[in-house]
Amino acid sequence: MAITAGFHASAAACQDSRAQDAARRLEARIHRQGGFSAVTSHDPQTGLTAACSEPAAEDESYQLDVGPDGAKLTARSAIGVLRGMETFAQLMEPSADGFSAAAIHVEDHPRFAWRGLMLDVSRHWMPVEVVLRNLDAMAAVKLNVLHWHLSDDQGFRVESKVYPKLHELGSDGHYYTQQQVREVVAYAAARGIRVVPEFDIPGHTTSWFVGYPELASAPGPYQIERRWGIFEPAMDPSRESTYQFLDGLLGEMAVLFPDRYFHIGGDEVEDKQWKASPAIQTFARQHRLATSEQIQTYFNQRVQALLQKHGKVMVGWDEVFAPGLAKDAVIQSWRGAASLAAAAKQGYRGILSSGYYLDHLKPASLHYAVDPLAGVPEEAASRILGGEACMWSEYVSPETVDSRIWPRMAAIAERFWSAREVTDVNSMYMRMEAVSRGLDWVGLQHRTNYQGMLDRLGGGAGLRILADAVEALGIEGRRDERKYTSLVDLNRLVDAARPESESVFHLEQAVRRSDLPTLRAAFSAWAANDTPFQPLSKSLATAGGIGLRALAMLESGKPAPENWIAEQQHILNTISKPQSEVVLAAVRPVRMLLENLGTRAERH
Amino acid sequence: MAITAGFHASAAACQDSRAQDAARRLEARIHRQGGFSAVTSHDPQTGLTAACSEPAAEDESYQLDVGPDGAKLTARSAIGVLRGMETFAQLMEPSADGFSAAAIHVEDHPRFAWRGLMLDVSRHWMPVEVVLRNLDAMAAVKLNVLHWHLSDDQGFRVESKVYPKLHELGSDGHYYTQQQVREVVAYAAARGIRVVPEFDIPGHTTSWFVGYPELASAPGPYQIERRWGIFEPAMDPSRESTYQFLDGLLGEMAVLFPDRYFHIGGDEVEDKQWKASPAIQTFARQHRLATSEQIQTYFNQRVQALLQKHGKVMVGWDEVFAPGLAKDAVIQSWRGAASLAAAAKQGYRGILSSGYYLDHLKPASLHYAVDPLAGVPEEAASRILGGEACMWSEYVSPETVDSRIWPRMAAIAERFWSAREVTDVNSMYMRMEAVSRGLDWVGLQHRTNYQGMLDRLGGGAGLRILADAVEALGIEGRRDERKYTSLVDLNRLVDAARPESESVFHLEQAVRRSDLPTLRAAFSAWAANDTPFQPLSKSLATAGGIGLRALAMLESGKPAPENWIAEQQHILNTISKPQSEVVLAAVRPVRMLLENLGTRAERH
Repeated sequence: MAITAGFHASAAACQDSRAQDAARRLEARIHRQGGFSAVTSHDPQTGLTAACSEPAAEDESYQLDVGPDGAKLTARSAIGVLRGMETFAQLMEPSADGFSAAAIHVEDHPRFAWRGLMLDVSRHWMPVEVVLRNLDAMAAVKLNVLHWHLSDDQGFRVESKVYPKLHELGSDGHYYTQQQVREVVAYAAARGIRVVPEFDIPGHTTSWFVGYPELASAPGPYQIERRWGIFEPAMDPSRESTYQFLDGLLGEMAVLFPDRYFHIGGDEVEDKQWKASPAIQTFARQHRLATSEQIQTYFNQRVQALLQKHGKVMVGWDEVFAPGLAKDAVIQSWRGAASLAAAAKQGYRGILSSGYYLDHLKPASLHYAVDPLAGVPEEAASRILGGEACMWSEYVSPETVDSRIWPRMAAIAERFWSAREVTDVNSMYMRMEAVSRGLDWVGLQHRTNYQGMLDRLGGGAGLRILADAVEALGIEGRRDERKYTSLVDLNRLVDAARPESESVFHLEQAVRRSDLPTLRAAFSAWAANDTPFQPLSKSLATAGGIGLRALAMLESGKPAPENWIAEQQHILNTISKPQSEVVLAAVRPVRMLLENLGTRAERH
Repeated sequence: MAITAGFHASAAACQDSRAQDAARRLEARIHRQGGFSAVTSHDPQTGLTAACSEPAAEDESYQLDVGPDGAKLTARSAIGVLRGMETFAQLMEPSADGFSAAAIHVEDHPRFAWRGLMLDVSRHWMPVEVVLRNLDAMAAVKLNVLHWHLSDDQGFRVESKVYPKLHELGSDGHYYTQQQVREVVAYAAARGIRVVPEFDIPGHTTSWFVGYPELASAPGPYQIERRWGIFEPAMDPSRESTYQFLDGLLGEMAVLFPDRYFHIGGDEVEDKQWKASPAIQTFARQHRLATSEQIQTYFNQRVQALLQKHGKVMVGWDEVFAPGLAKDAVIQSWRGAASLAAAAKQGYRGILSSGYYLDHLKPASLHYAVDPLAGVPEEAASRILGGEACMWSEYVSPETVDSRIWPRMAAIAERFWSAREVTDVNSMYMRMEAVSRGLDWVGLQHRTNYQGMLDRLGGGAGLRILADAVEALGIEGRRDERKYTSLVDLNRLVDAARPESESVFHLEQAVRRSDLPTLRAAFSAWAANDTPFQPLSKSLATAGGIGLRALAMLESGKPAPENWIAEQQHILNTISKPQSEVVLAAVRPVRMLLENLGTRAERH
């Protein structure tokens, strides 16, 4: 099917504004992606026609048929139409004289009903436009839940008209107005995405206490926290006024966020304040709460009752899973599949996040291999709603967050949507790169702002070569290097560098197919690299030099001198140690080449 | 002077909103460029303090002193403060642990009072955001006139309340509302930029006649023109109703555009309709107008009188310079320095555009060498107001126009501002690249959307290597390749490719300093290049292969085999012929290397 400037999408046969709006967005995206003229001729053009039978249904399945005369999309619901349009957008590709979509028949439906991204906007503030463009990207990979982590020690990010000191004193002025929240919720709904808010209690609440110290278990005063980790401030579970306050706030937020799920966090509660408070200890004895865990369970039950009153289903992290929790609660597991399986076995519904922590900056292949049902017994499987990737924001800014979520999120989204048997990692990487490029047209900045972030550092073209050859370290790799706080600028090489190097992946592929010219070009560029970023730049040049010599030996057919391979491997080990909070991914294809040399030597 | 997240700019001592607003913009730009944290500590930070003595003066000079404790900017006027702030922004650079500006003392003023960019928004429509971001970029290089080419055969781009069929029928719906015009004018004024509108008459007026055929010299009906060139439709100079219409329109536009200059075009009038019209010929005889040129002069005099009535000074292209033109008219020369000199000698003021046609996609060095005063006799020099670069929009879209104007416009802007003696081309290229990167932070898309335009075409990393090694051909190189009209999509390699290749420039520099590793890296990449873009890709591989062999000979010190150099030069000549509307810039450094080899052989 040819796709031209006159491409049109029609959802007239799906009586739902979401479908109509999606048709306009599809046209606009295809127009951008094609680079089409603003003025088009009036010749008849091919297009996509969508229909649905029950617009308001929640069924996300769809059927798509593309042929020379156009595309036909049918679904039960409007959301199904949305999903199918995203598939169509992925089909657009350059052809001999323009663009086309392959003739195809697709019958598609999601494996899990809950396919989420958790976005922390507390540790680093994320303006509305960041949220909106990530919603567009989520829709592009058929995610359907934005879990919005709206409060933590470092900031309370929503305007409260009931308790205004929450956002006024707890956010540095960086919060979403209620009008903005409504806009985000509507924007998400138009894309078939639910918004589940999280207000993390009773720990991770320092920012609440700046304005309302009376909520805390120790007197205060409190300041917005600039560091991260687990801090002592925790809500006072022993005072009725705490629950009255929460009733007021949750009631207000329950209206603002219409989704039926409501997340209360509940993770990482430090009990020092509780233990040090005679009043809380007395209260615990009166209520036969023997441990801090039991105190938290008491707290959770009270909160759960409040949420039920406001028509909400409670969601919490692992720690809320404890005896006495009402069975309608949903457990989100960050600690591992085992705890999720345990909760499911006891009849709770669950969401897996362990293994999907994007902020660890691990390879997509690692996340891709994690299955939400791994370790869950068959009979409990239906209680696993799905999964959620997590983007904690200790080390991300509005400028860097896109590149930390994307494109790896796309691989996880496939795990959540597609059949369990779809596990070919190489295929995933090829497709992830294509999706990554496509997300440019959706409005993400993960690729477009990369060069600017390097330009900022000086170093010119050489720095680009270096940056392409390294990978940024995640939270573990950054902890010791500097004293990070939310006041530290995220404007260094590690912030520009990608979690996974696309160009190094291509070189690994080149080794596999023995594409020596491509390897020589890369190694030569590394060997010539000369930037002010020492000693990294020198390490890269070393890797390039070793690669070039290995290539020469492979081509000449002469064996490597004795011990040469081992010596080079030792050097590679040395230079592959983290430097400047990044790791030299470039050593990987060089190592592979040395292994090939070694194997050949053994065969001799 | 250290520049940190807490950088502040104060213009409290310059009582002018333009200066205050510019201070806020400077802070925002520095914040973006630095990648600074949204939350800053409250420690005292360095900043810039600006003062002026006569805010409303037109004097653009300023004095800037930067030292460890901060920057001090003094100027007579608010506009001078604006200019000095742009200089300060250019000083920001990465330093050991953050950013800094060099300690410096600058006394600066412009050479010419009229430093313009002409933007054609008729042949291809440019939405308001394109105009706004280019105004920001203009301000960054201290340009002060936007010459807005608002009407032509292909579109009438301003809402007229007096003659609404102009924009309703003459624009495909792509026009600026009067409110948008006011916004653009105010946005420009806030940046010290005047907006001079051009309504091109009596030729280039097809789009006017779609709604008002009675203005034309032949009956019509008329359609919006999709091709470009010189067309027959021209206004009827013999009817009083034409001047009544123009009086109404010019009166309306004179209010909308407050600048005292008003451009009437006047170029390229085709006289076929005039010659074919008995009424016009009769009229000409009655008024003793012997030639079509004399008819146009009559028309111009009538229009000039109307403009004077509305308080405007008329500007026109070369062709309006004719006996009888009132001396307050300004002549803009597109045909050459000679015609400008002739007009200046006769007492007219002039602006040079010949030699500054950005749409020709010529090297910046070529434009940089053109001086507005070349050929102008000393006594007439004071009548040359300055110069204007021209961006005609036959081959540009909102997506590509930034990369066709920038960064070459910056080199021309320096010609208009700096002393005539500043002519070091290498220095210009180094600084132009730095300015180009800086313009990212001003909001231009000339660099950020490059990769996306390549992604659109498929071809992956290899296509980037190819695109970096070619240069787009200008209007002359495109005329014969396809049948271009305004309906043809501008989404091919030639549209993504830059007018001048930065990376090839770097390789030419590498040849000059005998940096063989850098050359080897580039040649290896070219030699390995393999994209679907044939035969270009094969040509690039050929150039890479020749380069690699030349490097080997240079390094070995062995002479080239007999005739080898001549044979390679022949091959380079063949592959340097335009293909796919681009030219292979990559041959240039290879040619230089062969010359070096040849010179060495002669010395032997």
